[in-house]
Amino acid sequence: MRASDIIYRKREGEALRREEIEFFISGYAAGQVPDYQAAALAMAVFFRGMTAEETVWLTEAMMRTGEVLDFADLDGPKADKHSTGGVGDKTSLILAPLAAACGVYVPMISGRGLGHTGGTLDKLESIPGFRVGLSLEEFRRVLRRSKLGLIGQTPEIAPADRKLYALRDVTSTVESRPLIAASIMSKKMAEGIDALVLDVKTGDGAFMKAFEDSKALAEAMLAIGKGMGRKVVALITDMDQPLGRTAGNALEVVECVETLKGRGPKDLESLSIELAAWMLQLTGVTTRIEAARFKVREALSSGAGLRKFQEVIELQGGDPRVCDDPGTLPRARERVDVPAPHDGRVARLGCRALGHAAMLLGAGRERVESRIDPAVGIVFHKKVGDLVIAGEPVMTLHVNDRSRLAEARELCLGALKVAPEAPSPAPLIKAVLEA
Amino acid sequence: MRASDIIYRKREGEALRREEIEFFISGYAAGQVPDYQAAALAMAVFFRGMTAEETVWLTEAMMRTGEVLDFADLDGPKADKHSTGGVGDKTSLILAPLAAACGVYVPMISGRGLGHTGGTLDKLESIPGFRVGLSLEEFRRVLRRSKLGLIGQTPEIAPADRKLYALRDVTSTVESRPLIAASIMSKKMAEGIDALVLDVKTGDGAFMKAFEDSKALAEAMLAIGKGMGRKVVALITDMDQPLGRTAGNALEVVECVETLKGRGPKDLESLSIELAAWMLQLTGVTTRIEAARFKVREALSSGAGLRKFQEVIELQGGDPRVCDDPGTLPRARERVDVPAPHDGRVARLGCRALGHAAMLLGAGRERVESRIDPAVGIVFHKKVGDLVIAGEPVMTLHVNDRSRLAEARELCLGALKVAPEAPSPAPLIKAVLEA
Repeated sequence: MRASDIIYRKREGEALRREEIEFFISGYAAGQVPDYQAAALAMAVFFRGMTAEETVWLTEAMMRTGEVLDFADLDGPKADKHSTGGVGDKTSLILAPLAAACGVYVPMISGRGLGHTGGTLDKLESIPGFRVGLSLEEFRRVLRRSKLGLIGQTPEIAPADRKLYALRDVTSTVESRPLIAASIMSKKMAEGIDALVLDVKTGDGAFMKAFEDSKALAEAMLAIGKGMGRKVVALITDMDQPLGRTAGNALEVVECVETLKGRGPKDLESLSIELAAWMLQLTGVTTRIEAARFKVREALSSGAGLRKFQEVIELQGGDPRVCDDPGTLPRARERVDVPAPHDGRVARLGCRALGHAAMLLGAGRERVESRIDPAVGIVFHKKVGDLVIAGEPVMTLHVNDRSRLAEARELCLGALKVAPEAPSPAPLIKAVLEA
Repeated sequence: MRASDIIYRKREGEALRREEIEFFISGYAAGQVPDYQAAALAMAVFFRGMTAEETVWLTEAMMRTGEVLDFADLDGPKADKHSTGGVGDKTSLILAPLAAACGVYVPMISGRGLGHTGGTLDKLESIPGFRVGLSLEEFRRVLRRSKLGLIGQTPEIAPADRKLYALRDVTSTVESRPLIAASIMSKKMAEGIDALVLDVKTGDGAFMKAFEDSKALAEAMLAIGKGMGRKVVALITDMDQPLGRTAGNALEVVECVETLKGRGPKDLESLSIELAAWMLQLTGVTTRIEAARFKVREALSSGAGLRKFQEVIELQGGDPRVCDDPGTLPRARERVDVPAPHDGRVARLGCRALGHAAMLLGAGRERVESRIDPAVGIVFHKKVGDLVIAGEPVMTLHVNDRSRLAEARELCLGALKVAPEAPSPAPLIKAVLEA
């Protein structure tokens, strides 16, 4: 088998065979297939696509270049959630403790954020002492104790994906649906889970802005999950305005704690409950989704979810007092309001621009090597549809470094539209797709 | 400017700007743009193509990564010919001396062959002592003396093309019309010539088998030549059967000498005269193509072309006796006939298979690093349309190494079709396209 022949066949629009995909990916991981051949194949896939079968084989091949976790020794169902990411998207920190409190093991391996605001890891690291870099042995120990573990990607998991993703980034081959789907799923399928709930964002602040594109990506991932024998469901959810009331790492941790105390914003609470409910439903903890929702709500109102979060923070070296006293979290030196320009209703909170503004303040990474400031970000006092009075703060920027404040504030002003009439609110959950 | 943005724009089907192409190609030649980005761009160009303007800019950018020869000090017009290659295609060794004998400087820089039979350089190297590796200074001296010089590609000419071609070969991005056209023209435009005659082959033994594809490639090269201010013409010529009576390096040199003595096969003679005539016409030596043809025929019948060939052989260190005595050329140990299976007319001489057979005998390269045996090859006693009697040799293989003889002979038998009726012969010159 020759890598150039495999590239040729894909270039001509043919479907690759399982052995060809395995040969190419294992060779790439081992350094036998050079970067330039992988770049040519990625571009050919961008133009020619891949069948559902090929995409499953690609995912499996990438997964098998690394360690595949096995939690068969844990006496219960294992599930996880993956989100394609958006501004203020912080459901992991709420749904993971809730699902664990309901009896589901949640071995969650998350990424850092690039662009927009931080990823789950960045949020967790704003908690003083919290260690996301556990060894796989430590991870297993924490999981066994609390049914919940929250760590970062390790070099052992799907190394071919890590290498290919870095290459795609510099060869303009990121936006290929089968490559995106296989990249996500190769890591998640290595987690040793029985079920996976996908939260595919759609709208202005999402990676996929059009509903149809989000749906197609969801379907590609569902096909992979099904092809690999896992239970999967995908929720397509709105990202036209930020989720919840905050964007920024420590600010979001506070909001998650508030939500676990039953005092969170409705959009964030209801999406977190829905996603956790599907984790219970897919793993057979409940037989009907209504019962699953009920069970998760109970874990919320009883405080079981909050206690679970506190427990895992402590087990992973973090300061559990953050659940009682937000003052233990980093806090920005300065607050700058963005006022309503006139009376009316909030008609638009441009999500992409707000995410960009948060990044400029230091809440997200502009480059892979950028450092995040956990304290900074934006608090949204109003959401789309809310009444505002001229001069009233619609949002507040939490600022440490003023160097890009003017630019960030300008972006926020441009993202805000106040009008006499607000559009009727878009449903938060736009579709639920099962494999 | 960032290479990944340039790849992105091409991937999205946009036309690149001149500065972008220059940035990418000069960076690639200098090692600042890595192979994997060049591979991704080549694949994007494969799918999206390039405008005529972009192709000119690409050619210029590749040309400018190396030395551009300047023969302004030579007191006369300079012209060259380029062929896309085929089996038995040996016109260079005939037309170059003829054009030089008619007053045109011919600074011919040729390549080696890959697949099929050898290239012009390989043919010249079958002449004992002939040096194709002259320095540019020696080349200039030979040219000044005899109006003719025949050398190989030097590392100074279009190094970016050399690097990109090697990359395209292993990333399945060879078959892209703008990339092929720019690759050929970047080297020819560096030769310091005023005019270029293109011989674009079409048919079974050509790189482009369909007439429309050959025409499109010819048009792309004409547009480049015109865009760079040169006189260019393209002849689209038949490669459905071998050209002339031989394929194999020393065998072809003998045939060229015979042709320069007025005793060559008609197809080879007439195409060589036609191509040389266009070199005279484009450079203004004549004002009408009929006058050009007449002048070239005169150079042939007077022996001026043969004397010019003899002169350049001597100037470049070769043994000029090859023009008098073919015995001075290498000769194979064994001859194996391929007989006619029954009475009839030759209906087909499958050109691709015959080229492959010649390569198996050692007349061409299977890999870049393969060594050519100058003595071996095939002599064609009959061409399409000729009468044959059962058992009569249609061709003779000249063999040194018997290891792949059976395979080569099998290919020749398969390539030969004898039928009661032969098709009416295809015209040798199918089209003449001017810029």
